[in-house]
Amino acid sequence: MPDDALSLTFSALADPTRRALLARLAAGEATVNELAEPFDISLQAVSKHLKVLERAGLITRGRTAQWRPCRLETAPLTEASAWIERYKAGWDGRFDRLEDELRALQEQAHEKGNNDEQD
Amino acid sequence: MPDDALSLTFSALADPTRRALLARLAAGEATVNELAEPFDISLQAVSKHLKVLERAGLITRGRTAQWRPCRLETAPLTEASAWIERYKAGWDGRFDRLEDELRALQEQAHEKGNNDEQD
Repeated sequence: MPDDALSLTFSALADPTRRALLARLAAGEATVNELAEPFDISLQAVSKHLKVLERAGLITRGRTAQWRPCRLETAPLTEASAWIERYKAGWDGRFDRLEDELRALQEQAHEKGNNDEQD
Repeated sequence: MPDDALSLTFSALADPTRRALLARLAAGEATVNELAEPFDISLQAVSKHLKVLERAGLITRGRTAQWRPCRLETAPLTEASAWIERYKAGWDGRFDRLEDELRALQEQAHEKGNNDEQD
């Protein structure tokens, strides 16, 4: 499995339970028990998902021994989003931009025609 | 492995070679041979990556038997980006919004103070 930062982020996001955990943490810090409550899975399974999120840098955990709240870290999400945004428009986007450019050229030609008539 | 649409998309993006293939396809359609050229991996390995991308709906392939160009499909990228954007601001975003609201309240209070002085 690739272990570059972006691959770790996307891999961590490739699971509905992990995405739900992140969505919960976007509302504020929470302990493992609080995070596990709405899910019909074991605390152990939740812990395993949290480890994947932690390895991807998507969460950090408090250092207090007893109460170690999880906290969402948004930097990897920003990186992931930036990658997607770069290619989202794709080929269609290029056609849209081409269309915009053609329209601008046509408008220029039209204006030039009007100016020529006035001369 | 989860097989919901969003998980398939994120899982397909969790590999640098697959991301490079998508980046190339964002510049226009290409055949498997054209896609494989810049990579130091076998055609077979490229084909395997393309199958993962195709399963996630990130690419489609032409139906001509001999020349089957791959084409980027941007809809799954839009979905993935929308998911990330929803949580990217996270907890920090909530503090920013809270700060904005407090600033607005202070400005209101300040304006009210000025008005009271004028009365």
